[in-house]
Amino acid sequence: MDYNKPRLLVNHRIAKSNIRAMAAKAAYYGLHFRPHFKTHQSAEVGEWFREAGVRAITVSSVSMARQFAEAGWDDITIAFPMNIREVDEICALAGKVRLNLLFDMPEQAAALAASLKHPAGYFIKVDVGYHRAGVLPDGHTTIEQIIQSTAGRLAFRGFLTHTGHTYRAKSREEVIGLAEKSNATLAELKRKYQGRFPGIITSSGDTPSCSICTDFSGIDEIRPGNFVYYDLMQLRIGSCSYEQIAAAVICPVVSVYRERNQALIYGGAVHLSKESLTDPRAGRIFGLAVPFNGKEWMLPEGEDYLVSLSQEHGILRLGSKWAASLRPGDPVAVIPVHSCLAANLLK
Amino acid sequence: MDYNKPRLLVNHRIAKSNIRAMAAKAAYYGLHFRPHFKTHQSAEVGEWFREAGVRAITVSSVSMARQFAEAGWDDITIAFPMNIREVDEICALAGKVRLNLLFDMPEQAAALAASLKHPAGYFIKVDVGYHRAGVLPDGHTTIEQIIQSTAGRLAFRGFLTHTGHTYRAKSREEVIGLAEKSNATLAELKRKYQGRFPGIITSSGDTPSCSICTDFSGIDEIRPGNFVYYDLMQLRIGSCSYEQIAAAVICPVVSVYRERNQALIYGGAVHLSKESLTDPRAGRIFGLAVPFNGKEWMLPEGEDYLVSLSQEHGILRLGSKWAASLRPGDPVAVIPVHSCLAANLLK
Repeated sequence: MDYNKPRLLVNHRIAKSNIRAMAAKAAYYGLHFRPHFKTHQSAEVGEWFREAGVRAITVSSVSMARQFAEAGWDDITIAFPMNIREVDEICALAGKVRLNLLFDMPEQAAALAASLKHPAGYFIKVDVGYHRAGVLPDGHTTIEQIIQSTAGRLAFRGFLTHTGHTYRAKSREEVIGLAEKSNATLAELKRKYQGRFPGIITSSGDTPSCSICTDFSGIDEIRPGNFVYYDLMQLRIGSCSYEQIAAAVICPVVSVYRERNQALIYGGAVHLSKESLTDPRAGRIFGLAVPFNGKEWMLPEGEDYLVSLSQEHGILRLGSKWAASLRPGDPVAVIPVHSCLAANLLK
Repeated sequence: MDYNKPRLLVNHRIAKSNIRAMAAKAAYYGLHFRPHFKTHQSAEVGEWFREAGVRAITVSSVSMARQFAEAGWDDITIAFPMNIREVDEICALAGKVRLNLLFDMPEQAAALAASLKHPAGYFIKVDVGYHRAGVLPDGHTTIEQIIQSTAGRLAFRGFLTHTGHTYRAKSREEVIGLAEKSNATLAELKRKYQGRFPGIITSSGDTPSCSICTDFSGIDEIRPGNFVYYDLMQLRIGSCSYEQIAAAVICPVVSVYRERNQALIYGGAVHLSKESLTDPRAGRIFGLAVPFNGKEWMLPEGEDYLVSLSQEHGILRLGSKWAASLRPGDPVAVIPVHSCLAANLLK
């Protein structure tokens, strides 16, 4: 593989060990493991999950569900509230795989129930405080309307959430606090409805809480995805160590500007995305550059941050001795802020 | 075209009129027009430029240069400092088209001069204050080293800049001020070197200054790209009117959350990019939702901004009566913050 252009490099050993570790953690806590495949969107990486015993997966779009159905996955939850405009594609998929949808409005349940020719299941998406999607925990009228709108033609699988506000957490303790609150909320809903629906489960699992927590009371299934690669954001939150980061973007140094102690790399918003972090000292950062030996990336040498990105350009602040020694043509490894978006751009 | 998934919709009439207007402006001011194709990256849109008399283009990567060479364009400037790792691809291209490279370090000139088998030209990239790339205006030692490193095997075309800091301008007056300073700097460099290199030109042209300025003294060539579609950022700067915006992303409404006056749309960071603007009232915004009649988008109804984006999700604040009336399945048109990045994601 040449590194003349920005390329995503995945460290197979680390990614496989992240997969095995999360599968083992789920097993240890008696949790069903349904990893999210939106991070890697790769059939090859999917096989590494299969080797770790995974049989059920999560995706975030109908097209991703189709992609992995074609790759032989037959138990798929589309963890995005159902887009009623895709009802035909969804019905076609339900004929091929064991499919679960997410509802947070009765219209979604009604639309699918009206056209479905094959069995399918649904989770009710619950908003535990992230305020992206979901029924409020006390929204029993809506929950009842959703259940009624399925007219018994869909299997109610349970309550599902994404505690995405853990991504904004400033400490491991904050992540644990948010997860416990979220888990308790789902458990309470399950208690309320399991009399009528004995089979229902609770499904949660953002990467920070799945990585950090040691108490999963009230939760039956976890669905983390980001953990397969981790990234700078997860490192900041405390979800992983640097050694657990499994993806970097290899970028060539194009020019060096001594007068401002910066370098231009070929690697911009179309390779890394404009996802950023705020560093207490460096301000807004778009990635961390570390040495690359042609095979693997190394430990960081210092605060060698990407401080700005445009479409194809990345500006690297030369913080360390190593960075200050970079010359045009040298490849550097950039640890992305958010590996899901970088992997999507370079897939 | 179905709108079940996020799709880029280009208004051909508006885009063609943006192209004709900029071509006419260049002609009026006696400027060579070498539009940047990184915004659309589309052979079809390229043909609209050809119809407006354009024969020479700008791209931001070697792969884009190859793409448009295959589409029949034979006069191409790669407006990115030369990545010496791509010297072989560049030499191959130089055998097919009239190619111009950018240098801001002697190493780049030396690397190309050493391997080039066909004629090619180069511009010296000048940093007029954007501090992304380029030699400083008083960097005569570096300029001389670059010229010497070409060993006379490359044609010196002149001085080129991108006044990208106009993108951060808060007013049209600020754009004009930055452009005049930048133009004067290039003109001064041309004066210094044209005795030795009679044919050299000055090349500039970011979309804000090309759209707003009426004085191009000192400039021979302009290279705007973003103007073909414009976007929310250009509207804020004052580069365009709303009626000149030629691209939107059509997204289906998935769910509506009355309790927080927001809706979930299928349209996220992988469709719109995480490029954002800071609105005095709404804070950080990722796009503006406007009505869509199935064919064209309409005028904005109010402050219906995307206030957060994750990988596939967009959260729309329901600011207007129209937005408050949206139902699951309704398509909305999202005016992107930065059309270059949205078009790249949805190309």
